[in-house]
Amino acid sequence: MAEVQVVFMPSGRRGRFPSGTTVLQAGRSLGVDIDSVCGGRGICGRCQIRVAEGEFPKHGLTSGSGHLSAPGSLESNASTTQPLQPGCRLSCCAELQGDAIIDVPPTSQVHRQVVRKAAEAHDVELNPLVRLHYVEVQQPDMHDPSGDQRRLEDALEFEWGLSGLECDIGVLQVLQPVLRQGDWKVTVAVHAGRQIMAVWPGLRERVCGLAIDIGSTTIAAHLCDLASGEVLASAGLMNPQIRFGEDLMSRVSYVMMNPDGDVQMTRAVRAALNELAETVSGSVGLKPQDIMEATFVGNPIMHHLLLGINPVELGGAPFALATDKALTLRASEIDFAIHRNARVYVLPCIAGHVGADTAGVMLAERPDLSDEVCLLVDVGTNAEIVLGHRERLLACSSPTGPAFEGAQISCGQRAAPGAIERVRINPDDLEPRFKVIGCDLWSDEPGFAEAVAATGVTGICGSGIIEVLAEMYLSGILLHDGTISGELANRTARVRAEARTFSYVLWGGDGATAELRITQNDVRAIQLGKAALFAGVRLLMERLGVDRVDRIRLAGAFGSHIDVKYAMVLGMIPDCPLDRVSSAGNAAGTGARIALLDQHSRPVIEELVRRVEKIETAVEPLFQQFFVEAMAIPHLTATYDHLRKVVELPERMPAATESAHRSRRASRRTAKLD
Amino acid sequence: MAEVQVVFMPSGRRGRFPSGTTVLQAGRSLGVDIDSVCGGRGICGRCQIRVAEGEFPKHGLTSGSGHLSAPGSLESNASTTQPLQPGCRLSCCAELQGDAIIDVPPTSQVHRQVVRKAAEAHDVELNPLVRLHYVEVQQPDMHDPSGDQRRLEDALEFEWGLSGLECDIGVLQVLQPVLRQGDWKVTVAVHAGRQIMAVWPGLRERVCGLAIDIGSTTIAAHLCDLASGEVLASAGLMNPQIRFGEDLMSRVSYVMMNPDGDVQMTRAVRAALNELAETVSGSVGLKPQDIMEATFVGNPIMHHLLLGINPVELGGAPFALATDKALTLRASEIDFAIHRNARVYVLPCIAGHVGADTAGVMLAERPDLSDEVCLLVDVGTNAEIVLGHRERLLACSSPTGPAFEGAQISCGQRAAPGAIERVRINPDDLEPRFKVIGCDLWSDEPGFAEAVAATGVTGICGSGIIEVLAEMYLSGILLHDGTISGELANRTARVRAEARTFSYVLWGGDGATAELRITQNDVRAIQLGKAALFAGVRLLMERLGVDRVDRIRLAGAFGSHIDVKYAMVLGMIPDCPLDRVSSAGNAAGTGARIALLDQHSRPVIEELVRRVEKIETAVEPLFQQFFVEAMAIPHLTATYDHLRKVVELPERMPAATESAHRSRRASRRTAKLD
Repeated sequence: MAEVQVVFMPSGRRGRFPSGTTVLQAGRSLGVDIDSVCGGRGICGRCQIRVAEGEFPKHGLTSGSGHLSAPGSLESNASTTQPLQPGCRLSCCAELQGDAIIDVPPTSQVHRQVVRKAAEAHDVELNPLVRLHYVEVQQPDMHDPSGDQRRLEDALEFEWGLSGLECDIGVLQVLQPVLRQGDWKVTVAVHAGRQIMAVWPGLRERVCGLAIDIGSTTIAAHLCDLASGEVLASAGLMNPQIRFGEDLMSRVSYVMMNPDGDVQMTRAVRAALNELAETVSGSVGLKPQDIMEATFVGNPIMHHLLLGINPVELGGAPFALATDKALTLRASEIDFAIHRNARVYVLPCIAGHVGADTAGVMLAERPDLSDEVCLLVDVGTNAEIVLGHRERLLACSSPTGPAFEGAQISCGQRAAPGAIERVRINPDDLEPRFKVIGCDLWSDEPGFAEAVAATGVTGICGSGIIEVLAEMYLSGILLHDGTISGELANRTARVRAEARTFSYVLWGGDGATAELRITQNDVRAIQLGKAALFAGVRLLMERLGVDRVDRIRLAGAFGSHIDVKYAMVLGMIPDCPLDRVSSAGNAAGTGARIALLDQHSRPVIEELVRRVEKIETAVEPLFQQFFVEAMAIPHLTATYDHLRKVVELPERMPAATESAHRSRRASRRTAKLD
Repeated sequence: MAEVQVVFMPSGRRGRFPSGTTVLQAGRSLGVDIDSVCGGRGICGRCQIRVAEGEFPKHGLTSGSGHLSAPGSLESNASTTQPLQPGCRLSCCAELQGDAIIDVPPTSQVHRQVVRKAAEAHDVELNPLVRLHYVEVQQPDMHDPSGDQRRLEDALEFEWGLSGLECDIGVLQVLQPVLRQGDWKVTVAVHAGRQIMAVWPGLRERVCGLAIDIGSTTIAAHLCDLASGEVLASAGLMNPQIRFGEDLMSRVSYVMMNPDGDVQMTRAVRAALNELAETVSGSVGLKPQDIMEATFVGNPIMHHLLLGINPVELGGAPFALATDKALTLRASEIDFAIHRNARVYVLPCIAGHVGADTAGVMLAERPDLSDEVCLLVDVGTNAEIVLGHRERLLACSSPTGPAFEGAQISCGQRAAPGAIERVRINPDDLEPRFKVIGCDLWSDEPGFAEAVAATGVTGICGSGIIEVLAEMYLSGILLHDGTISGELANRTARVRAEARTFSYVLWGGDGATAELRITQNDVRAIQLGKAALFAGVRLLMERLGVDRVDRIRLAGAFGSHIDVKYAMVLGMIPDCPLDRVSSAGNAAGTGARIALLDQHSRPVIEELVRRVEKIETAVEPLFQQFFVEAMAIPHLTATYDHLRKVVELPERMPAATESAHRSRRASRRTAKLD
């Protein structure tokens, strides 16, 4: 029989086959990654390929569309559920009749790269645990009795090479009617190549998964097509546990005070998850029952409450987790009403204060692949900090408190329309200008008052607080030790005496609008938070034995919104070229999505979590020392000139403010703290 | 350091150890099977051993109790939960100080043989899947944070060599309080050496399992101590599905006629199982939550309904099972309210009419270990028949109908007080005498009437029907072709004309008591049943290529109660020396118990079930032929003289009856059937 030569691109795999072999058969026997759900029956349209035209001396052959069999009725009728792209052929129908170079486009590869979002560090490899397989099953025969399950498994072995399968009881309960309804042609969802988890009559092509980040405040979910990696829809929901306590510690207190407090909170979060699954699937015309797998990240307390574990041990030393291992469960084990046989993967927690959300950040950022020293920071009520590189990784949590989220600040508020998010202060006249969420104008631009008439200027959000304090420092209002300079009270009415301290008036107070001002207490709250963050980072740097970091990634909502320049002016993060500091977006959620799409990522994060060195700041004497030293702005030893090396600033600090700084510095070398 | 020599009996394992080694350590390092739950802490008392006294030239040593360290406080205080037996030592406390021969009594072995019951074919090897392990867990340490689960697993690995464990979420939910309640000393139940399924504070020694046989009529359960193999309690319950239909086919009809009929029946059987678990555990002071594992056998329809699978496909050709594989499930998956993390093992079905109950019979009887030709028969509404030997096994089901259970017999009834179970007929005057259930007297003995006054003589049960028909045959009332001989009507009033046939009056009819008589239709019903049974056996013999069987085992309640001599007279079973025919008791239930106690039996039965050749009688033309031929009594070619070779009978058939037989035989060679 005549032989033909074929080369598959982009893999470059090549081989010789008898003329008449289908392109799909040839590809499979060479291990080329060509997608197919229907198993080569010309139904699903997933195995589309193109033929290169021309002479290819490098490959020693001439290729052309004429070297394939003419399109048959299946292809020309375009009856596939995925339409045939122009110039494409179905590899399961097209037979090789001459030498050919076959191009497998990314959309026809199973293990294609998922297009990454701007904030994401790495591409995601698509290796979903749940795969669909279309099979034709032998009908029962009284002369050779065997159960329907066995004949289904025989078909899966014969057509897809899957052996040693097991079958969920939920599948057995519907198997017989589904086989007969589908006239013995069914699509099977197989989990991890081992477990039959669903069966539908006829051909089915879409299989979905849900990646979920359970935050203390909000729960975010991304519905993904497991076959393409595409995010079909995203949705968020307030965490209903908020009614039991605003922050984590008040929720743990609630559990301590109420005998079934943990049960109530578990019930609340699970109900919210079911609502979210309904919303996010409904938004694209699907049902929760279409979701075959879900992955979860969350801080240790959210993690425990999701799993129905009382988090009370996390409320006090020694902060023992019930488990620091990853969990694979049935969705039903956590009352998650997606597909009845769906599986759930919960990323591992790292330590009592460093949760599965941080594991998600690590999986998204993969500091273990970096030769440089990477710093990952996820700021919330606690800051989770990961530092390290290819050789060594360390992690800790630092008690920043809720100031960065606008709590404990006299005029602080959540990021919402009306909240100040950007601030500039003129160093000459100390007058501020600012922007609020929901309005594109600066406050000194014409039309601002009208533009914010609807919302008002209601408060200041986390990123706004950072900016106003940094600008106060840069304009000399705020001194190195964090004191609001009383000397300026006679230069501007915006600096105002209050009991024994001073405050800076940012907005209003004219009778028509509420006054928004930064008090000395507000400054202290931020100082405590940023000192904790910086001390945590410095502790890890000390342990790692480095005095600088090469790259900083700020995860979470806070990291997405702050201007890193101001974070550096305030001394929240260590010195680092500004262009090496960036937002990682919702890296924890990205980690959940990676664990959903790429099964190989699960052992990776499990091993990473085991390997990371866990530092408990509460028992580290050095942490206390670093904490005290980090209270100064930007930090103990840094000055304006030092700041200029990393942040673009005017060449000289304004004369007046510089003199104010200098006089304070002379009088006390170390910041004295309240 | 001085070395001592030690020999363990009965294994004969021997070795040398440093003086001061505990007997348990020495035994373990030699792989000697010594039980222990507490891991050598002198608490559980399971590791008791004896020291042989005297000179043992064969072993080259002198042994004596003086060669062990003196009993310490743990032993002498006898504080162990299992009391120290006279002359015994705790091997975990006693140190070797000289050569010794150590006897490990059966009660101190893990893998001991379970004492078998009379009806059981084989001893049961004790290899339970669920094992208890006592451990002391490291407390959490902030300097080296790790989850409680990990430290528990570390302890299990360190103390018991168990690695790669996983943990049920139900355990994680209670782990933290249990560890603290037990002051970091807990007992862990591990399933299959892999899965942590329960944890209790302190030392716990008892772990239970439940073996269940779901019959169409009754559900039987045996509660077993998984550590000793002992049956702690047994209990039975009517199958509440009876309200949906007396026999299997009427239940399938119910499902066909009622849209949620299967759901109702599943709910009914599961509710009954929960009641049974409550009853059987309560009878020995335990709770259903103490049951960590359950095994199930049942016919295909009971099997499917238990699992929540609609059995409608089993109601018609091609009788396809949803599955013919064994299932391992969570108890919760079938709503079985035993321990929340308990596992369930359901034995495999063999074919559409040959269920997991037959698999249980095979596991109890192990015909595959026999060099002889074994015939296993389980008679119910269908007879399940297994025939074969070491090389080859065949199985079929034969539609005997419910006549053997007393149904379709005019005066038939279930085996209950008042039912006739034994019958003798005097061949001279054709007068009967009988015994009823609940009374030790024969009906012709003085005091019988008074003894049965309470219950009355209410009907005839399955074994009674067999006996009365066989006796009618032996006394000439019943002819070879199954006709009640009208010629005798003028000899005795007990043979009475009825329309065109005759009947035999067994009891009553004197006005005071209801009349019990055997009609021609009753005979026909039994003939049909016994012909189906015999034809099924003969079909398998034909297929196996044998013309005799070496051994017959009758399983089930019917097999326990009938007198095999009469079964042979009627021609229910093939010729076989009477002493090779015996009852196997509730062999299906025994199989469930074996699967519960010996994990190694599970792959054995799974492989056996795959290997057995399944014969579907409905599509075998030979079966029809054999069926017709088997209608005669005892069967086509057998005569009284033939019977005498296998059954002890008077030398000659009574002259009168013989002549009657002869005249009928001459007139028609082959029985003509209705």
